[in-house]
Amino acid sequence: MTRLSELGESHIISRVLTRNPESAHVIVGPGDDAAVTAPEGRLVSTADMLVENEDFTRDWLDWDLLGRKAAAQNLADVCAMGADPHGLLVSLAVPDDTDIADLEALYSGLFDEAERAGTALECTVPIIGGDLSSSGLIVIAITALGTVREDAAFLRSGAQPGDALYLAGTVGRAAAGLDLLFAGLRRETAGPELRALIDTQLAPRPDYGALRTVGTPSAMIDVSDGLSLDLARVAAASGVGIDLDRALLRDLIDPLLPAAEVVLDVRATGGAGDADSSDGRAATADDLALSWVLDGGEDHGFAASAPSRQDPGVGWRRIGEIRTGHDVSLDGTPVPASGFSHFGK
Amino acid sequence: MTRLSELGESHIISRVLTRNPESAHVIVGPGDDAAVTAPEGRLVSTADMLVENEDFTRDWLDWDLLGRKAAAQNLADVCAMGADPHGLLVSLAVPDDTDIADLEALYSGLFDEAERAGTALECTVPIIGGDLSSSGLIVIAITALGTVREDAAFLRSGAQPGDALYLAGTVGRAAAGLDLLFAGLRRETAGPELRALIDTQLAPRPDYGALRTVGTPSAMIDVSDGLSLDLARVAAASGVGIDLDRALLRDLIDPLLPAAEVVLDVRATGGAGDADSSDGRAATADDLALSWVLDGGEDHGFAASAPSRQDPGVGWRRIGEIRTGHDVSLDGTPVPASGFSHFGK
Repeated sequence: MTRLSELGESHIISRVLTRNPESAHVIVGPGDDAAVTAPEGRLVSTADMLVENEDFTRDWLDWDLLGRKAAAQNLADVCAMGADPHGLLVSLAVPDDTDIADLEALYSGLFDEAERAGTALECTVPIIGGDLSSSGLIVIAITALGTVREDAAFLRSGAQPGDALYLAGTVGRAAAGLDLLFAGLRRETAGPELRALIDTQLAPRPDYGALRTVGTPSAMIDVSDGLSLDLARVAAASGVGIDLDRALLRDLIDPLLPAAEVVLDVRATGGAGDADSSDGRAATADDLALSWVLDGGEDHGFAASAPSRQDPGVGWRRIGEIRTGHDVSLDGTPVPASGFSHFGK
Repeated sequence: MTRLSELGESHIISRVLTRNPESAHVIVGPGDDAAVTAPEGRLVSTADMLVENEDFTRDWLDWDLLGRKAAAQNLADVCAMGADPHGLLVSLAVPDDTDIADLEALYSGLFDEAERAGTALECTVPIIGGDLSSSGLIVIAITALGTVREDAAFLRSGAQPGDALYLAGTVGRAAAGLDLLFAGLRRETAGPELRALIDTQLAPRPDYGALRTVGTPSAMIDVSDGLSLDLARVAAASGVGIDLDRALLRDLIDPLLPAAEVVLDVRATGGAGDADSSDGRAATADDLALSWVLDGGEDHGFAASAPSRQDPGVGWRRIGEIRTGHDVSLDGTPVPASGFSHFGK
């Protein structure tokens, strides 16, 4: 093991950036005061941060998966605008006794996820800048940049009554994984089915490829905080109501039932706490699984509205429809927006 | 006092962004999955992070000045490329018992510094995105974006033997301020001269305006880690040696002598520790002041090389020259690169 404190900053940076891909649009990469790149069209930019003890704990930390998650949550936001990723800026604070191998694993996760997005969207996603700092807590702050043709960005504000609502990827699996972690399960010991849910929490895999087949959605959002909260944002931005169809959500709910049984069992026997759980006090496995689907966002599924006559592309499933009104509802009954929000309200 | 935990994330964000300036190049600002902007020319991007206990302590925290510093250190990097600032993405983690008034002060500092840069360079610098998270430690991670005409970026790699070396702004004042803080002084109680040094540490004021008069430098760098280290980077990137002229540095050294006397007095009487001081064991006030000038970077002065026949613009002072070789030297004697580096080497 080699601790970062035994190495210099510039040596560390060159080690972790060894895999950084060549990109034709990078004119000056990491190493000067700032990067110089050549974007085409409009610039799309977003920033998101993962903080130890808030977004993950040392107890279930996997450096490679943390890197994947940090990249995925930012790339999903760029891609949900209909943009092609252009590059990442990665600011990282870690304890100075961190093993360089762990840091390399984190960057390996970043590069893997950036490559996954790049492969799906036929582009290269280099790291173009960033910062490395020491800290008692692990913090990873990423800015993702992308480019999109003029007037081609997918906003939250264009949904129209009569449109159908589609989802690419999943919702609820990461929330189920989080409750399994809170219930004391770990990816190393869980069976394959539950482990897959934990893995979605630790490193979501947005379906970037579905964005190539989406056509022209009237609105689009990266579901990062839960369907109930994120669709409420679309409803507010578009001035519409959105009705989810429970029957169409069954394919998302049913695979979560075994995990829901496990979590309810642990709770019933007074197992590990679930203070941060988003689901309140679900009485049945079906209730709990539904609450994960409605309020669990970290899968980074993409929700899009489009005229219902338009054929949904590969990877998209219909889950509801856009109506007049201003609420998010499930089979006509309003759903409170209770997905994830920092600072509690 | 209203703690953040009593408010919702979206309410907090709208409060702190009240002052966000309108900008013609912002098509979609904060509030969607990502921002959409219209950069002209090449894109310049940089990211830098301030972490509690590493870059500042709660003991001498001033939220407004922290915001100014976080903006300044990023804007300086963008501007040192010859670019006009385009926008900031601000990711922030703070304890959830933070007073909303403190967070508003931090953003006020960010906006003030962005406005100072924008006024100097005749542009508008909005916050276009970011993230707000809770954390036990305060972390502020900023990405600054800028734009520059094709082939007009100032790199570190163009310095030529025979060029003169110029500085805009100062070096050493922030390092003196840091040693004063370590020696137990505080801005509230220090006299005006020492307080000004502490203020440079807490909130540097880069001379953005000097970048309008710089003409076409052969190389440029934001001096953030100290002249000795940052000029070594220019020397390495350009394949040259750089000789500093001690007589030309006198105007930077002399104003620091009173602070150096104070710091040496406190040390001699066994006062507050100086574990993080960058200057080793300076024997005289002149030695200490010189070490601040050579190794102290957080003033964010701009160093530039240019043909010596070229008239330096307003705000630039000559401090040395570019030679053949590969070292940084002072009156011909090599200077070790001992400015700031994370992880100790």
